[in-house]
Amino acid sequence: MFYHDKRLQYHARPDAPDPLFARKLQEVLGGQWGEMSVMMTYLFQGWNCRGPMKYRDMLLDIGTEEIAHVEMVATMIARLLEGAPLKAQEDAARIPIVGAVMGGDDTRDLVAAALNPQHLIVSGGGALPSDSVGFPWTSRYTIASGNLLADFRFNVTAESQGRLQVARLFAQTEDKGVRDMFRFMLARDTMHQNQWIAAIAELERDGLETTPAPSTFPLDSELREVSYQFWNMSSGTESADGSWASGTTPDGKGSFTYLEAPEPMSEAPELPPGDPRLHGTPPMPIPPVAG
Amino acid sequence: MFYHDKRLQYHARPDAPDPLFARKLQEVLGGQWGEMSVMMTYLFQGWNCRGPMKYRDMLLDIGTEEIAHVEMVATMIARLLEGAPLKAQEDAARIPIVGAVMGGDDTRDLVAAALNPQHLIVSGGGALPSDSVGFPWTSRYTIASGNLLADFRFNVTAESQGRLQVARLFAQTEDKGVRDMFRFMLARDTMHQNQWIAAIAELERDGLETTPAPSTFPLDSELREVSYQFWNMSSGTESADGSWASGTTPDGKGSFTYLEAPEPMSEAPELPPGDPRLHGTPPMPIPPVAG
Amino acid sequence: MFYHDKRLQYHARPDAPDPLFARKLQEVLGGQWGEMSVMMTYLFQGWNCRGPMKYRDMLLDIGTEEIAHVEMVATMIARLLEGAPLKAQEDAARIPIVGAVMGGDDTRDLVAAALNPQHLIVSGGGALPSDSVGFPWTSRYTIASGNLLADFRFNVTAESQGRLQVARLFAQTEDKGVRDMFRFMLARDTMHQNQWIAAIAELERDGLETTPAPSTFPLDSELREVSYQFWNMSSGTESADGSWASGTTPDGKGSFTYLEAPEPMSEAPELPPGDPRLHGTPPMPIPPVAG
Amino acid sequence: MFYHDKRLQYHARPDAPDPLFARKLQEVLGGQWGEMSVMMTYLFQGWNCRGPMKYRDMLLDIGTEEIAHVEMVATMIARLLEGAPLKAQEDAARIPIVGAVMGGDDTRDLVAAALNPQHLIVSGGGALPSDSVGFPWTSRYTIASGNLLADFRFNVTAESQGRLQVARLFAQTEDKGVRDMFRFMLARDTMHQNQWIAAIAELERDGLETTPAPSTFPLDSELREVSYQFWNMSSGTESADGSWASGTTPDGKGSFTYLEAPEPMSEAPELPPGDPRLHGTPPMPIPPVAG
Amino acid sequence: MFYHDKRLQYHARPDAPDPLFARKLQEVLGGQWGEMSVMMTYLFQGWNCRGPMKYRDMLLDIGTEEIAHVEMVATMIARLLEGAPLKAQEDAARIPIVGAVMGGDDTRDLVAAALNPQHLIVSGGGALPSDSVGFPWTSRYTIASGNLLADFRFNVTAESQGRLQVARLFAQTEDKGVRDMFRFMLARDTMHQNQWIAAIAELERDGLETTPAPSTFPLDSELREVSYQFWNMSSGTESADGSWASGTTPDGKGSFTYLEAPEPMSEAPELPPGDPRLHGTPPMPIPPVAG
Amino acid sequence: MFYHDKRLQYHARPDAPDPLFARKLQEVLGGQWGEMSVMMTYLFQGWNCRGPMKYRDMLLDIGTEEIAHVEMVATMIARLLEGAPLKAQEDAARIPIVGAVMGGDDTRDLVAAALNPQHLIVSGGGALPSDSVGFPWTSRYTIASGNLLADFRFNVTAESQGRLQVARLFAQTEDKGVRDMFRFMLARDTMHQNQWIAAIAELERDGLETTPAPSTFPLDSELREVSYQFWNMSSGTESADGSWASGTTPDGKGSFTYLEAPEPMSEAPELPPGDPRLHGTPPMPIPPVAG
Repeated sequence: MFYHDKRLQYHARPDAPDPLFARKLQEVLGGQWGEMSVMMTYLFQGWNCRGPMKYRDMLLDIGTEEIAHVEMVATMIARLLEGAPLKAQEDAARIPIVGAVMGGDDTRDLVAAALNPQHLIVSGGGALPSDSVGFPWTSRYTIASGNLLADFRFNVTAESQGRLQVARLFAQTEDKGVRDMFRFMLARDTMHQNQWIAAIAELERDGLETTPAPSTFPLDSELREVSYQFWNMSSGTESADGSWASGTTPDGKGSFTYLEAPEPMSEAPELPPGDPRLHGTPPMPIPPVAG
Repeated sequence: MFYHDKRLQYHARPDAPDPLFARKLQEVLGGQWGEMSVMMTYLFQGWNCRGPMKYRDMLLDIGTEEIAHVEMVATMIARLLEGAPLKAQEDAARIPIVGAVMGGDDTRDLVAAALNPQHLIVSGGGALPSDSVGFPWTSRYTIASGNLLADFRFNVTAESQGRLQVARLFAQTEDKGVRDMFRFMLARDTMHQNQWIAAIAELERDGLETTPAPSTFPLDSELREVSYQFWNMSSGTESADGSWASGTTPDGKGSFTYLEAPEPMSEAPELPPGDPRLHGTPPMPIPPVAG
Repeated sequence: MFYHDKRLQYHARPDAPDPLFARKLQEVLGGQWGEMSVMMTYLFQGWNCRGPMKYRDMLLDIGTEEIAHVEMVATMIARLLEGAPLKAQEDAARIPIVGAVMGGDDTRDLVAAALNPQHLIVSGGGALPSDSVGFPWTSRYTIASGNLLADFRFNVTAESQGRLQVARLFAQTEDKGVRDMFRFMLARDTMHQNQWIAAIAELERDGLETTPAPSTFPLDSELREVSYQFWNMSSGTESADGSWASGTTPDGKGSFTYLEAPEPMSEAPELPPGDPRLHGTPPMPIPPVAG
Repeated sequence: MFYHDKRLQYHARPDAPDPLFARKLQEVLGGQWGEMSVMMTYLFQGWNCRGPMKYRDMLLDIGTEEIAHVEMVATMIARLLEGAPLKAQEDAARIPIVGAVMGGDDTRDLVAAALNPQHLIVSGGGALPSDSVGFPWTSRYTIASGNLLADFRFNVTAESQGRLQVARLFAQTEDKGVRDMFRFMLARDTMHQNQWIAAIAELERDGLETTPAPSTFPLDSELREVSYQFWNMSSGTESADGSWASGTTPDGKGSFTYLEAPEPMSEAPELPPGDPRLHGTPPMPIPPVAG
Repeated sequence: MFYHDKRLQYHARPDAPDPLFARKLQEVLGGQWGEMSVMMTYLFQGWNCRGPMKYRDMLLDIGTEEIAHVEMVATMIARLLEGAPLKAQEDAARIPIVGAVMGGDDTRDLVAAALNPQHLIVSGGGALPSDSVGFPWTSRYTIASGNLLADFRFNVTAESQGRLQVARLFAQTEDKGVRDMFRFMLARDTMHQNQWIAAIAELERDGLETTPAPSTFPLDSELREVSYQFWNMSSGTESADGSWASGTTPDGKGSFTYLEAPEPMSEAPELPPGDPRLHGTPPMPIPPVAG
Repeated sequence: MFYHDKRLQYHARPDAPDPLFARKLQEVLGGQWGEMSVMMTYLFQGWNCRGPMKYRDMLLDIGTEEIAHVEMVATMIARLLEGAPLKAQEDAARIPIVGAVMGGDDTRDLVAAALNPQHLIVSGGGALPSDSVGFPWTSRYTIASGNLLADFRFNVTAESQGRLQVARLFAQTEDKGVRDMFRFMLARDTMHQNQWIAAIAELERDGLETTPAPSTFPLDSELREVSYQFWNMSSGTESADGSWASGTTPDGKGSFTYLEAPEPMSEAPELPPGDPRLHGTPPMPIPPVAG
């Protein structure tokens, strides 16, 4: 069960409204790598966790923290939207936009047009659970497989993509209040990248998981002859310069080899005609059939 | 530009049709962690790559290989669908299903019903670009951020989740032909997990990226005081037992601390009334306004 | 079966084209609370209706009217799009946009850019079945549960959200022709809010439905001890000031109570290890298994 | 900010696993009217609220409670999935499914096939953030318009549809543990229907909102002559028997009238040819144009 | 504006309920090629039509007819769902499904499980606006480009895919009532395939459109040297046997040629480093930058 | 299996960056009728093909070519995005956007705002697998039914819609490099329209398919009396002027007739009450029931 403290985890107050930036900020609220995604991902991983309790508790700690991040960013967006212009030239005669564009120099309609229109029409000046192009958040962004190594690898990815996006947004505003919140978010992402890297190492130390994941699948049940081969499928051999092309593999169980001119291991497939009642096109004319 | 060799990269021939398994196999073709996802992810990462050529070439090598994996799994599905029953009791009088269920013991209608109906109605016995519940593949599964560390971390995740799903499917069939293809896929996923782990290390050796990603964002621009704090937001302190709660952080730039009873760092927010023309509910009654 | 009269239900002629407003107007055509949603919702409720004929007929009356609303708004959008600029400075030398922005003062490219690009590229100057951010209409906006009280409550919501959005759009244009159509739409939404409120009361008078819906589920089969408790889960007790915190409940079957410091009624759950063949992470190391 | 207590709000323990019912139960977790929807809806309404504090606090109270409901249902699903069969006849020779169907009487493969396959392949025995057909939860289910009357009407709808679905599921299982949780959920939905009905009345008493919503839009700006007309668009006049066809309207501002044979109020529209560079089909042949 | 006649365009009465077939029938109601798609496609093409009136009228004729098809199929689905089993063994002791599967021979739970669960939980025995796997209808299935040749080609496709799906479903039921409706639908699809083929020819006779569409784009603005070349990109030359490899082209403006061993016409691209504030990985190490 | 040649099929180099045009160009990369759609459609049609080998080979030829088109357009987009402005006035004091709009004349913020924000935040200056409004590509754009006539009709549509969109974009830029690539794409679309028209004719010559598709369904199993009737459902009879209203039908198997005043062929449906445990609203009050 959950409790809510009305205080924000960190400040979320811009120096001034900026409805155009509010549109961009939606990406780290309701985008694929935004706060809603990590919140739901960590909570579901925690709720579904069948592993040791320290992992379950840790997942629910961070999942609960992320709800507060959603709250912070949502609050910031609502504040950035204050005073968003609904239309141009409110106390003057209206200038049709096309005419204005062909001859005038007024940009007021343009600001109104460059907004996310749903910030006015749908949420009425509030945050939307969508990304920066208005695409709604979907639970396909929630990853919880039951395998902690596979999932923690996802988590370190999510904290990397998320920190990357905040770093990019940092460069797209000079508002000190927004940047203050970003400084908090960047630092938490730093923590969380470190946290998941530590947790991945701990899974291995605990003897629970290792590379290749899932490590509980027996290696001799896979086709070991292709387990460490690099296939050069694109012209040029620049890829041979990488450490993935030779030497011991990171899992310590083999050596990379480089197939410079790979050949298919099988034959060209042919499919027989299907059931005539499916009316797929057959190799040669057939009589009609209804059912 | 691309060329196609009609031979399959590896065998994709089941011992016998199994339309129910075909439905499940769709997950690793058109699911979130299926072959279509890694194919498009690696190709877009390669096409958008602005880093060293060895990484670009490597991405296009593996992206091109993955098209062949899509081809293999699609072919397998088409073969598993051969002979799928369209309906029950074809040469006998029809027994209404509800009646059959209440008194009979015939399961033929049930097999027809448990199929993915689109395998018959939509694709007519062919593979669908969808997952095991029929949800269509979406390009939100394609990740290409321009930051190779963030993306390679995604890639190792994708190969982990993908290998996990194939391992699970392996346990859900005993068809030797299907398992033979799985043995190849499992091995390639082993290779690719190793490949991305090696590539992540190489990015660091090349001085291009490190933790926290993106490493080109200056650390002193983030709020360092919270960069290594673990916040205990869920009752109980089992999470204090993990290596993420104390000791040097994996990035080597700090030490984890454990906040056992964290408090908010900010205040409860209040939002002012919005523009009255947006007709949000205000704190107190206001006069009507039209525009 | 349906018949079409080519005359529009009401006027849909703007004073002047305004392609930027056309983008916004899409919200009440193909958005979540737009005309397509109420049209499909009422038609499906009508077609699926198993209740008294007066409700079924009423649903098909209003559902059929809403098709005409879709037609009106679509026509308006097509007219607003006339003369939309395809690009800037057609009879002059091209000024690259970035250069123009850094040094020039021309806004023509900007108007072209602020349009919904699909109005030019996809529909070629016609209405799109999408909302104001270009997200396609989805049938998840169609609600038809078979329970008329649950559905009529949705309907009064839909007419409220829809009227709210038109009222907001009214403030974002001064075009007299557009506002004339809005005046019609606002009035019909007034009618329809009243209609659904009346219908909800009539369901109760008819003895068919009441609060809590569905009223055909026996109350003694629910856990009555929590049926009228308000749980104060967020810090502060401002919520105790509402009529939902004390007094007789609207259904007349109980009294509200206010739990100021609620406690969980159950225990912390633990999940046992799963089937090892699913390769979820277990509480302690286990031997490999393939299938 | 949020805190988590590991204890569940209410019990979520089935008497026995039932993976087929787990698939159905997903509807009230990740479906359109499931717990995720009300959780996100109430939280966003609370975070965006610009009205009186008692409403904001109340929204955050209930929004926080709903996170616990998500937790409960997710836990129940994980428990129902224990022991789900991966495939048939594990310690016997495999019988191909088609053959079995044509001659056999074994239903084990069928159970495995009737599961949501993603419960095994994707979540590995855990809850999914999806509905009963596997469709992922989308934030389009989150409604927060800034207008409390419009939104509270949605909320009473959500609690009605949600209670309806739980009541239906109640009839589809006899597991006492599942029914126990349902009895709690049904009661809370009873509370919440009453709560929103009370809150709607309170908004009106507070002078903040009334019918038609939004009440801050001036009535004389709408086309009053059609504000209370019922248009009979479907053959037959059964709809004239309803209270929506005559008498005083619920908003007390008019009287219903019944248009038995409605006529369009406008004319048939015609659209002029578009810009030739859009290559739409014109009324008569035109010369080619490139740009 | 539209009027509704309560009579169905054609009969929609099954001989007996069949809830499993109802699930399949959803494909031609709310699937990609179902009745909702052609209804919305033809209506939008009509409303957006800027060409000769005979085409606009014809589009609105057929679009209006298709609403009646939606109505028919929805009615049929509701009737097929009558008596759908909610659970097994209603007047007997409950047998847990897993146990039943391991040892029993009862199929009642299985029928309930093989249903589309939303037919019970969501629509309560009514039609859903979804396809046979429960995926909701989306307006991306609505095609209306403004170019009548491009669109009529889509329309003949839609009538072909639609008729194909009905023909497949015809073989999956023996219910005489269902087949009777199918016989009507198949015939109307025959009409509509013919209608669109006739309309395509008429566009050409009218001088409005021809191949290649759009014919109003000047041919000398395209790169004519590749306008009739077949590129053999897949191993083997079986494709050289087709009429697309040699001879006069259908547009009468050229001759097909067959490139047996095609070579790229351009060079390998390289991308320069991006803006450092986007934190993409550069070709060589760079100093940190924040904004 | 596939091989990649790093050279592009054709040039993809703009004269100058144009990030606003990059946003539009996404339509023909990741839009419904973009290169990703035809690539996946042709590959799936090829992989699933059960007809003569010349068709299968041809499909794989063109499917493989289309991967190269995706590569070209993606490269072009990445190049158009170079130098995209992150924000305005980088070395000057910040002017809040609303203030600037009300009094200033600076358009720099506006350009940054009119971009697709995901080009900066998500892909960091690379192509996205989305359309021009940012909607992600979905595999519902992939059509592969197994019936070659139905599918080839789709293919000629796709090449028509695709060529139409490129022709429209051609008019929206004057960049010579972009137009050079468009000239190649337009020509290939010309080829492919001709190719599919030729292939359709060849299917008929081969005796495999004809109108109405699927031709393997026996005509006497459809309701022939309505197979060639045009139903005039919209007021006015302009549609009687078309060749679809009289004369021999294109399939040569009948004659069109024109029903000027069509009447329904069936009766008004009524639905009986449903299972009371589904809690749908019945025609008259019923007692409560739980399960």
